[in-house]
Amino acid sequence: MQNYSKQELLEIKSELVAKYNRYKSLGLSLDMSRGNPSKEQLDISTPMLSVLKTAEDCIDETGFDCRNYGVLDGIPEAKKLFSELMNTSSVDEIIIGGNSSLNMMYDNIVRAMIFGVYGGEKPWSSCENIKFLCPVPGYDRHFRICETLGIEMISVPLLADGPDMDMVEKLVAEDETIKGIWCVPKYSNPTGITYSSETVRRFAMLRPKAKDFRVFWDNAYSLHDISGRSDILLNVLEEAKKYGNGDMIYKFMSTSKVSFPGAGVAAMAASKNNIDFIKKLMGVQTIGYDKLNQLRHVRYFKDAEGVRRQMQRHAEIIKPKFAIVLYILEKEISDIATWSNPNGGYFISLTVPDGCAKRVVTLMKEAGVKMTPSGATFPYGVDPKDNNIRIAPTHPPVAELQTAAEILCVCVRMAAVEKALSEK
Amino acid sequence: MQNYSKQELLEIKSELVAKYNRYKSLGLSLDMSRGNPSKEQLDISTPMLSVLKTAEDCIDETGFDCRNYGVLDGIPEAKKLFSELMNTSSVDEIIIGGNSSLNMMYDNIVRAMIFGVYGGEKPWSSCENIKFLCPVPGYDRHFRICETLGIEMISVPLLADGPDMDMVEKLVAEDETIKGIWCVPKYSNPTGITYSSETVRRFAMLRPKAKDFRVFWDNAYSLHDISGRSDILLNVLEEAKKYGNGDMIYKFMSTSKVSFPGAGVAAMAASKNNIDFIKKLMGVQTIGYDKLNQLRHVRYFKDAEGVRRQMQRHAEIIKPKFAIVLYILEKEISDIATWSNPNGGYFISLTVPDGCAKRVVTLMKEAGVKMTPSGATFPYGVDPKDNNIRIAPTHPPVAELQTAAEILCVCVRMAAVEKALSEK
Repeated sequence: MQNYSKQELLEIKSELVAKYNRYKSLGLSLDMSRGNPSKEQLDISTPMLSVLKTAEDCIDETGFDCRNYGVLDGIPEAKKLFSELMNTSSVDEIIIGGNSSLNMMYDNIVRAMIFGVYGGEKPWSSCENIKFLCPVPGYDRHFRICETLGIEMISVPLLADGPDMDMVEKLVAEDETIKGIWCVPKYSNPTGITYSSETVRRFAMLRPKAKDFRVFWDNAYSLHDISGRSDILLNVLEEAKKYGNGDMIYKFMSTSKVSFPGAGVAAMAASKNNIDFIKKLMGVQTIGYDKLNQLRHVRYFKDAEGVRRQMQRHAEIIKPKFAIVLYILEKEISDIATWSNPNGGYFISLTVPDGCAKRVVTLMKEAGVKMTPSGATFPYGVDPKDNNIRIAPTHPPVAELQTAAEILCVCVRMAAVEKALSEK
Repeated sequence: MQNYSKQELLEIKSELVAKYNRYKSLGLSLDMSRGNPSKEQLDISTPMLSVLKTAEDCIDETGFDCRNYGVLDGIPEAKKLFSELMNTSSVDEIIIGGNSSLNMMYDNIVRAMIFGVYGGEKPWSSCENIKFLCPVPGYDRHFRICETLGIEMISVPLLADGPDMDMVEKLVAEDETIKGIWCVPKYSNPTGITYSSETVRRFAMLRPKAKDFRVFWDNAYSLHDISGRSDILLNVLEEAKKYGNGDMIYKFMSTSKVSFPGAGVAAMAASKNNIDFIKKLMGVQTIGYDKLNQLRHVRYFKDAEGVRRQMQRHAEIIKPKFAIVLYILEKEISDIATWSNPNGGYFISLTVPDGCAKRVVTLMKEAGVKMTPSGATFPYGVDPKDNNIRIAPTHPPVAELQTAAEILCVCVRMAAVEKALSEK
């Protein structure tokens, strides 16, 4: 853009504004703000709603009536299924939760704040000031938990193979008030990268100064391949055990984007020490989570292979959505922007010229397309370069997505031209 | 028993031991420890499992697809149903939760510990030492929350018309560190009494020194009549509003003993100030609870009248169970024990001679009948008189219950004779 004269830029701008106004006049109402599955994806799982019908259907493999009270940490067949999905070495290393892994993560942090963690000397809240490392860009809801709980967030760049591990190693080794790190290790939200085996091993070998340091390994997209060439993620818990670090890892997953968001099943995996510690406190909070929904999931999927077959069906629906957005980005703005092209997950991470992201999101909003608020993928909602936009292409139908991507490209170019003009 | 000579007591004892051993030899395995519904009760609700079948079934009254993410505080039709069940003046005064009201109560206390409550000056955990009033005997899981969180518990006698309000009024007016009180206002767990209108009004008019004092009104048995003459409970939230105390009340309920324990729906009602404050923090913890299960409940019950009809069916199943236990108690131990005969709820509260409760529960256990641990209904698990036994008659079939009640009477008499002997 720097090569254009002011006059040229003004002419480009006026053409873009005309285009933009045509889109605006369509009166669109599209949403690319959150990683929500589409109706077609939800339809895949809908037969699950009918697998439990009779009283006999509600009896688990031990003969227990799942309609009644009891079973704090999940019915045995659910523990087996999730152990397989999470590559856990034993069902003693797993807890089946409610409908939300976010809630499980929140509860674990709150528990650590109030009671501390297994092997810790005191509650996190007894420390003057505690900190979490936040690979950026990252998942806004992770950051909101920290911000709300008054946990200071330290940004760490998320590189192509995971967080900047030189920085992570140095920080955790030096600072005892760093109690945790947020990780979305596979098909990271939003950049779509997967941590390399080298990165996972460096996590496993961390020597944090805080003995009560925990890695929050939110493996939300562990099953969510959209390519035949799916990324490989090493099992961080098993790796960590090799270095005596088994108690340092909390792994999370859910079926929110496998079965139903909001009516899925969440699970966490961790060392037996951690699980026993957590279960004791969890038993004060609840008698147990929804066992009928656990049973519904197990009966429907049958086994891990059943889940994987389901994920292929999701991928078939999602692929054309990623394709159309990537195609249009390539056609329209490859000269001024870059983006991720992940092998799985729910997002495309778009990097626009510095200082333009907020403006693009505003322009999109005014044209009737809701995007994730700019800055949301950074701690405290502040994107220091104001250049990251998270695109969530799964929910809208392909035709709408095409329109939305086209508007997005017009908005990116408009913001870039406005910026160039402001610098003339 | 005091009138008997030692010799007579020894003879009575030896007869009782013979009886006891006959029961013991039956190799029983009965459970009267928890308020669990029976299989027949669970069967009533089982058709609910089939009401959501198709994608179209999952659309709520606003057109929202309940299979997807969203809706933090409950779908509109669930808010309407629970507002009616909780006599809430508006749907702005309600939050629909997950599967457990215990979990909702725990979350609210934890939230108060970390963030404080609406209108409070600071988090409860910032206070040196905080306290809860605990009407006794009461619900063990309430007390366990306090004990685990380090909240000091002060016992208040639960009288025939509710907690000793003279004591409650005096304590909360004097002590700023008293932040809450546990109440099971209707068919109290375990004594089965219902707070009188006078008691409810005195709650509504409380003038606690702590501005961040909250009444935890766990109306777990609000719908659980077993008699045509059901007890009447005044609406404490509406009463409290009359005295400017609307923000002081948190009401809770769930369908755990209406539909399915563990797969029911919980809800809380409170002033709009409280609800708005809580929702803001709850939005950090979760995207939303299980909306499909909310919808399942609304579609099955249709309205509050549907719930009430269902409760009549529960009552028909429960009545003979209360009847057989009460009949046997009356026949066998009316000379040495007293008990409650509630119009609803899940428990009979048995008062045995002082110092005998623990022994009775041990004898029962050895005979193969699991009872609630003695002391469980008191803070810190200590029944100061060691005379309260909670009987949960709903789960076992009537025939087993008869046997269990008979053994119970033998055990009570044995313990009483042992005590009399020890005093000779």
